[in-house]
Amino acid sequence: MRYVDGLENSIYDRRVFEELHAGRLTCVVVTMAFWEDTLETMDAIGRWHDFAEQNSDLILLARTTADIEHAYQTGRTAILLGTQNSSPIADRVRFVELFRDMGLRVMQLTYNNQNAIGGSCYEPEDSGLTRFGRQVIAEMNRVGMLIDISHVGERTGLEAAEASTAPIAITHANASSLVPHLRNKNDALIRAVSERGGMIGIPTYPKICGEYFSASLERWCELIRRTIDIAGIDHVGIGTDIGRNEDQRYLDWMRVGRWTKGAFFGAGSAASPGVTPPPDYMRTTEGFPAVEQELRRHLTEDETAKVMGENWMRVYRAVIDDPAG
Amino acid sequence: MRYVDGLENSIYDRRVFEELHAGRLTCVVVTMAFWEDTLETMDAIGRWHDFAEQNSDLILLARTTADIEHAYQTGRTAILLGTQNSSPIADRVRFVELFRDMGLRVMQLTYNNQNAIGGSCYEPEDSGLTRFGRQVIAEMNRVGMLIDISHVGERTGLEAAEASTAPIAITHANASSLVPHLRNKNDALIRAVSERGGMIGIPTYPKICGEYFSASLERWCELIRRTIDIAGIDHVGIGTDIGRNEDQRYLDWMRVGRWTKGAFFGAGSAASPGVTPPPDYMRTTEGFPAVEQELRRHLTEDETAKVMGENWMRVYRAVIDDPAG
Repeated sequence: MRYVDGLENSIYDRRVFEELHAGRLTCVVVTMAFWEDTLETMDAIGRWHDFAEQNSDLILLARTTADIEHAYQTGRTAILLGTQNSSPIADRVRFVELFRDMGLRVMQLTYNNQNAIGGSCYEPEDSGLTRFGRQVIAEMNRVGMLIDISHVGERTGLEAAEASTAPIAITHANASSLVPHLRNKNDALIRAVSERGGMIGIPTYPKICGEYFSASLERWCELIRRTIDIAGIDHVGIGTDIGRNEDQRYLDWMRVGRWTKGAFFGAGSAASPGVTPPPDYMRTTEGFPAVEQELRRHLTEDETAKVMGENWMRVYRAVIDDPAG
Repeated sequence: MRYVDGLENSIYDRRVFEELHAGRLTCVVVTMAFWEDTLETMDAIGRWHDFAEQNSDLILLARTTADIEHAYQTGRTAILLGTQNSSPIADRVRFVELFRDMGLRVMQLTYNNQNAIGGSCYEPEDSGLTRFGRQVIAEMNRVGMLIDISHVGERTGLEAAEASTAPIAITHANASSLVPHLRNKNDALIRAVSERGGMIGIPTYPKICGEYFSASLERWCELIRRTIDIAGIDHVGIGTDIGRNEDQRYLDWMRVGRWTKGAFFGAGSAASPGVTPPPDYMRTTEGFPAVEQELRRHLTEDETAKVMGENWMRVYRAVIDDPAG
């Protein structure tokens, strides 16, 4: 069975690649940028070329689902390059295609802050999708890049779903009807994404799963099943948001970047400003096979396969392999 | 017969593309950067995507010689993206591959000034190839990018020819034994390039062809034939360095860029600081068919075809299509 993790947030090293292998991951989307600009993101792509060269027994860089299939056949993990912000394109619509040429396949429209494309989930006011934002979406559709709205404001996210001619994704967030949190999404938005062939990836990050659903593997799989009730069996996958090797410095960069001289806690709070320990059932991606086993107690094999990876594969095929639609 | 112009320096518009078509050019290498940095060069690549989209009846962007062949079969001109400096890679060896992914196929190691790679033809002292320069050459060899040394210092150029495992090119310069000028190259360097399968492209730019060889098409073809005596029939092509729509502002940017607050005249001089009018026989690339006719008076059809384009095609196949060698 193909396992796909639709969004990871780790600092990678060979040990983490070994965990992906042990967890039998066929494909993961990695985060190369939160606030990183064009050159910094190109540096990150360069590091991934190095990783792929130095760990070719464990990973490969994927540009198409054929590459992902090749990883599956050779027992390796396909890396799909992603960013959690559009900062790499430097407000230039033509850079979308250039980053696609360099291998970028999944780009989030905004991270935690409003930008030239639209509003974020943490802004007091969500502007909705801008004129430039519509240009970027059309270009992402044209060249074959998956639009991620996980941290995007709900109004901007809804307008993105409506503007896009290709399926889009909430790669790592929950239904706010199940877990109230600024980072999570209302049912109307989740349905708008699903109805257009898109996806929601269920994270394991406890801050946005809440105490109840983070208490055990059983509870987290209940969260998946209850999200299926909202989005449908073809529209739910996994996007752990796992942060292996994450430390305070990395967390500070994610949250504060260069946008404030003060403090901002993201999905955390002043009372809980530090690195959140991962849940027991997903300390590393070695936890994936147990998820399959637990899901099988309630879902058919076919349904389980969809959640574990096939839904992501369908979206990648539609968006990345076949941008003309 | 395939006509290839190994280096052009024009500001393009539809009129210039029509001239390429009228001149029956199968392929031209365009200049996207003299001093332009990473983002500025990416902007230039974006403009070429626009050009290709808006003028698809006349041109196409080529990534391989199969694309050039396709242009030939469909009566269009293939554009090979080039830069006359390594400024786009921002002293990062990994950016070579990223620019290759974005379509760059020909990169000059230095323009008129010394940089991190080596020395230029105008510096009082040529450092030779640096340690970083050797890394860049190895990476250009690996990913399939043609090394151009037209403005590079002779010592650095020779060391580049020796370090490269693939053929390299002097895309637009003359033999200094025929036309003494700082921009032209000594016979030993031309032979070192040729012996390793490389090329010299003969320019039409009068400042580096001299009065005698610029006086007529006959004289310029004599320059080609005399260069063949030095390099061999398999190692001479055309690299006009033509500058359609070139104006004083563009010339100032090329020569002065951002490196001096004073004046620098490049191949010109204080006595001749302005735009040099093109020679009568090559006001535009519409002059190419007449070059074929004139060469045929002294060379066989096969030899003429080599000079007009086949030698460049051989080098592109060896370097760009088959980087592993």
